[in-house]
Amino acid sequence: MTKIDFERLIQDFPILKQTVHDEPLVYLDNAATTQKPVQVLQAVEHYYKKDNANVHRGVHTLAERATAAYEGVRQKVADFIHAKSTKEILFTRGTTTSLNWVARFAEEMLKPGDQVIISIMEHHSNIIPWQEACRKTGAKLDYIYLKDGELDMEGLRDLIGPKTRFVSLAHVSNVLGVVNPIKEIAQLAHAVGAYMVVDGAQSTPHMVIDVQDLDVDFFAFSAHKMMGPTGVGVLYGKEEILEIMSPVEFGGEMIDFVRQQSASWKELPWKFEAGTPNIAGVIGLGAAIDYLTEIGMDAISDHELELMEYVFPKLQDIPGLTIYGSQDLAKRTGVISFNIDNLHPHDVATALDYQGVAVRAGHHCAQPLIAHLGVASTARASFYIYNSKEDCDKLIQAILATKEFFNGTL
Amino acid sequence: MTKIDFERLIQDFPILKQTVHDEPLVYLDNAATTQKPVQVLQAVEHYYKKDNANVHRGVHTLAERATAAYEGVRQKVADFIHAKSTKEILFTRGTTTSLNWVARFAEEMLKPGDQVIISIMEHHSNIIPWQEACRKTGAKLDYIYLKDGELDMEGLRDLIGPKTRFVSLAHVSNVLGVVNPIKEIAQLAHAVGAYMVVDGAQSTPHMVIDVQDLDVDFFAFSAHKMMGPTGVGVLYGKEEILEIMSPVEFGGEMIDFVRQQSASWKELPWKFEAGTPNIAGVIGLGAAIDYLTEIGMDAISDHELELMEYVFPKLQDIPGLTIYGSQDLAKRTGVISFNIDNLHPHDVATALDYQGVAVRAGHHCAQPLIAHLGVASTARASFYIYNSKEDCDKLIQAILATKEFFNGTL
Repeated sequence: MTKIDFERLIQDFPILKQTVHDEPLVYLDNAATTQKPVQVLQAVEHYYKKDNANVHRGVHTLAERATAAYEGVRQKVADFIHAKSTKEILFTRGTTTSLNWVARFAEEMLKPGDQVIISIMEHHSNIIPWQEACRKTGAKLDYIYLKDGELDMEGLRDLIGPKTRFVSLAHVSNVLGVVNPIKEIAQLAHAVGAYMVVDGAQSTPHMVIDVQDLDVDFFAFSAHKMMGPTGVGVLYGKEEILEIMSPVEFGGEMIDFVRQQSASWKELPWKFEAGTPNIAGVIGLGAAIDYLTEIGMDAISDHELELMEYVFPKLQDIPGLTIYGSQDLAKRTGVISFNIDNLHPHDVATALDYQGVAVRAGHHCAQPLIAHLGVASTARASFYIYNSKEDCDKLIQAILATKEFFNGTL
Repeated sequence: MTKIDFERLIQDFPILKQTVHDEPLVYLDNAATTQKPVQVLQAVEHYYKKDNANVHRGVHTLAERATAAYEGVRQKVADFIHAKSTKEILFTRGTTTSLNWVARFAEEMLKPGDQVIISIMEHHSNIIPWQEACRKTGAKLDYIYLKDGELDMEGLRDLIGPKTRFVSLAHVSNVLGVVNPIKEIAQLAHAVGAYMVVDGAQSTPHMVIDVQDLDVDFFAFSAHKMMGPTGVGVLYGKEEILEIMSPVEFGGEMIDFVRQQSASWKELPWKFEAGTPNIAGVIGLGAAIDYLTEIGMDAISDHELELMEYVFPKLQDIPGLTIYGSQDLAKRTGVISFNIDNLHPHDVATALDYQGVAVRAGHHCAQPLIAHLGVASTARASFYIYNSKEDCDKLIQAILATKEFFNGTL
């Protein structure tokens, strides 16, 4: 298993050492949320037991320690995604909030007849904010569809043009696991003067992210999908764009001067961060970044590819099992959506749960894609660094047992 | 000290057992944020070590446990503030987000010439969202001022009228500590057909809240000011109002159906909660409510009043020390803003910190009030249930020593 000391790593995740329905837990729902290493929990606990105070506003010792810890994570995030400066890193509640903020910016920029391009494989959080922005401004929302289970790049080239103001795409699909060629698309977007927005919720936890190399204008992701706490995420934006973008929330901490009838804002990044932030969440995110960095993002990608090379052919070999999206492992991450002939995905997930295997079933917050695939829902297994080939074997065995059980009773 | 077992209670707050500049820490910055009992930390840790999964969407065991825990807290919150049902409880990032959501609703409702009334003692989070709503709609933002260090009720009666659409007030001022007569004001607001909005950030941690008895339309508060985690808060809204209010954030979890060009929303309360919520934060809030409830909110109020009766006259006796706001303890909570002749509040806070006493200095995110008081800033000591008369003594001694030190060197 690459160079990772897997036996040591697994000790960091106490939640995985439990049984579910008397079976050892095999957690394969990582696209929904990931488990947290004890290092992250300890960082949060240390903060609450030693340093807890409100940030920025205090001169007392705890407030200074809390502020230093909080702002220190901003630098860690900037380094982690290769941003130019901490001015480009905004802490939000999560990817959904980050994308909503960008769509609010779009509401200020869009005019009737302008075009926004998204894809059919987007998560609802990268669809509905754009529906709303287009509804309010009279802009048009256009979709890129699929070709061979990947983004139809020809379709994108046909669609994009001088009316295009925003192109907003998932870096990795949370259903298909396919990786979209964001760098190439950003060039196409910039060639027509459009902003490039990326939903990085499913990529940031699994691969090296370099926002400067990708040359994207906005990039959003969540801590909880990369071993960090719930309730905190990031919006990266290029400094020159954030400078012209209006704050979305108003309150304490983001202001310079407040008079009775008007107010002025602080400089970046603080003009966007109204109110007490999720201080402990941000500190947990910092610990998660430390943890991921110590393993190495390349090692994580390698590990997941090794798991995919092991489990994907085994799944393909199961009669009646359909895997959605590209079958080319070089273009995928560790997210596999599938269906089994005659079986409802909900029943599959329930049967797997009875065997200790946690997968998800449903529309995965991507109803337009699921409808486009011509199904009502799918089952989804999604992997992370703490999953092993034994977990893969358990998944395969459990699917086979499920098929046998239901086919016997059908 | 009332009926609270103080010696036992203090054991629950390990952060308080530390020294700062070689002096035992006396934490008097509770209006900024409060410390967390180990019970809250344990609840969060238990969640991450046993149950962590994304909520609502999963059929596997962990997802079911996480969902039950998360939704269980919604009931606890409803009970804690005496809401009619869990449909009226929305989880947000904090009070600031809650108030921004209400102001977004106001943007939909306000017309040119309409009036919004707030007070000069509001926190920026209850000022700037209204400035923005009025700027966008052409409504007028009017202020109630102070009389004898309290809200000028005569001024309010003169101001309110048929044009008034929203009255939005702090329940307790984060600078003056005064408690506003919200029940009476809500009657005045409703008599003219206006909505009554309450910033409960400084009241909810310290007294019994009964939103039905107060008969308010919206009520906002934060977990971190009531012993809960950072990054989570609540917006209470009357069900019939939330029914007509549009969601503010869009994404997964808040939808019913998503088509390519349109979407429909879930029922209350979920139509407002887009994306993965701060699950661990909500669970921590539940543990905080359990903790506060076991002590008893009346016992907490009594304890703080007892501290005020002890420390307030001692502060009043210090020559050159001015306490802002009403001097009537029956109308205050445990927040005391003060200045000392010839001393800059920032220097006072720094000198107190050197003696182990953590207070805040500045404008307390209430610049219009600070300007109205005719000062540039104040020092502020704010108390909670874990503070003792010994802490009061330490504050007084430290202020006297600070005066002596600076007057000696001036």
